[in-house]
Amino acid sequence: MAQPSAKKQRTHPQYELLYHPGIPGRGEFIRLAFEAAGVPYIDVANEQKEGYGIVQQVCMNKTTESADNNPPVFSPPALRVPGGGKDGTALVIGQTPNILWYLGERLDLVPEDEAGKYYVQQITLTALDLNNEMHDTHHPIAVMKYYEDQKEESLKKAQDVRQNRIPKFLSYFDRTRQHNEHHGSGKGKYLVGDKLTYADTTVWQVLDGCMFAFPKEMAARKEEFPQLLGDFYEAIKQESGIKEYLSSKRRMSYSMGIFRHYPELDRQ
Amino acid sequence: MAQPSAKKQRTHPQYELLYHPGIPGRGEFIRLAFEAAGVPYIDVANEQKEGYGIVQQVCMNKTTESADNNPPVFSPPALRVPGGGKDGTALVIGQTPNILWYLGERLDLVPEDEAGKYYVQQITLTALDLNNEMHDTHHPIAVMKYYEDQKEESLKKAQDVRQNRIPKFLSYFDRTRQHNEHHGSGKGKYLVGDKLTYADTTVWQVLDGCMFAFPKEMAARKEEFPQLLGDFYEAIKQESGIKEYLSSKRRMSYSMGIFRHYPELDRQ
Repeated sequence: MAQPSAKKQRTHPQYELLYHPGIPGRGEFIRLAFEAAGVPYIDVANEQKEGYGIVQQVCMNKTTESADNNPPVFSPPALRVPGGGKDGTALVIGQTPNILWYLGERLDLVPEDEAGKYYVQQITLTALDLNNEMHDTHHPIAVMKYYEDQKEESLKKAQDVRQNRIPKFLSYFDRTRQHNEHHGSGKGKYLVGDKLTYADTTVWQVLDGCMFAFPKEMAARKEEFPQLLGDFYEAIKQESGIKEYLSSKRRMSYSMGIFRHYPELDRQ
Repeated sequence: MAQPSAKKQRTHPQYELLYHPGIPGRGEFIRLAFEAAGVPYIDVANEQKEGYGIVQQVCMNKTTESADNNPPVFSPPALRVPGGGKDGTALVIGQTPNILWYLGERLDLVPEDEAGKYYVQQITLTALDLNNEMHDTHHPIAVMKYYEDQKEESLKKAQDVRQNRIPKFLSYFDRTRQHNEHHGSGKGKYLVGDKLTYADTTVWQVLDGCMFAFPKEMAARKEEFPQLLGDFYEAIKQESGIKEYLSSKRRMSYSMGIFRHYPELDRQ
């Protein structure tokens, strides 16, 4: 079981993250939430013998049920929560932002006020949109085909994402940060409120992935967004739980997942 | 003000939908929720003189605030709720699934149980993913360029979406429906539970848009998914509130938005 540095004394169920093994992917947004909270979770495919078989059985089957009488899941990640469902059965929920909303209050990664919870989710959904667009820079035509078979289209798509989409998203994240600095309680360190939320960890992960995929582009953008890509990005890495995680073996390298480093797609 | 057939007696704030005028778009998922619930809302850009100026000011500005001291919104749609924010101020929230979650309980469009609420959101997020992929069939390279300037790529993208993605999504929606038919209380009519939820209206809208964009493809798929694309699709159209809305002037035609009918992109 992944054993992040303990922070909370609250009792938690034995959460199970169901995701593909060996890549950060969309599972990483869930991992970062658990790690920041210091709450143990089982990363089934990475930790259990034949764990990926369980992930496939629950999240990638073609039947009318995922597991434990829950409805089907479209694709990983899913979260299984023993005792979280009807009449004490396990709850299985899919869709990354849905899982994060479920965990937000339980992991103490959202503000107390209702408005703040919706801000956190709004930012998170937007960061996950950028995550999808980053995937599409190397797979603009067909998710199941090789990059090499859609390289010409990828060159065009990546150029548009770098020139138009990334700055639009960075501007939004940075203006949100500024809003919290000027009108909220974040002092520029957090995106919402005065403590870490899953909006911070999710935006951080997408920024980190963009820096891996497009190092030249992001280095150039840092001049435009020095606080977001400098101070904010560095500060989140130092957060309790996150810091220990990033230097642990649990943090996996980017490879052939959502964020890929093809130099020809980066700024030339 | 849009005045759907009244159904609820509960007191509601004067909800404002902030979206582009003249197209169904992502605003339609919010409209369908209000209309199904019979709760009045103001469709600002379509109903108010200079309403689109308000939408642009709140949702498309480049500053650190949307309105009423709420943080920025990335892009429309947004929902403004008088009195819904901190200390009685207005709440402005962005991101379609976030708005739907906010409205779900308030409009009585989710089940009572927590698991059911997460199922509804899981299905909704997945339907909105298909919505995005449908947009990308005519804009696979750059959202700000004309279709005509990415037509070759669109032909390839649309073929993949039709052949691989649409059947995968339809299978998921139909298996969810079957799960509720066999294990839940939906009797095959609803996706979750025994009454209409925003998962039903959201999936319905995406199916309807797919039928507009790819009539031949969807007619062929109906043989594979007769209940989803037949019984379910038709039954939702007959729901109280939805039926009246669809025959009203408030229901806008598809045109140059997310769902577009380019015959060359459809099954040949």
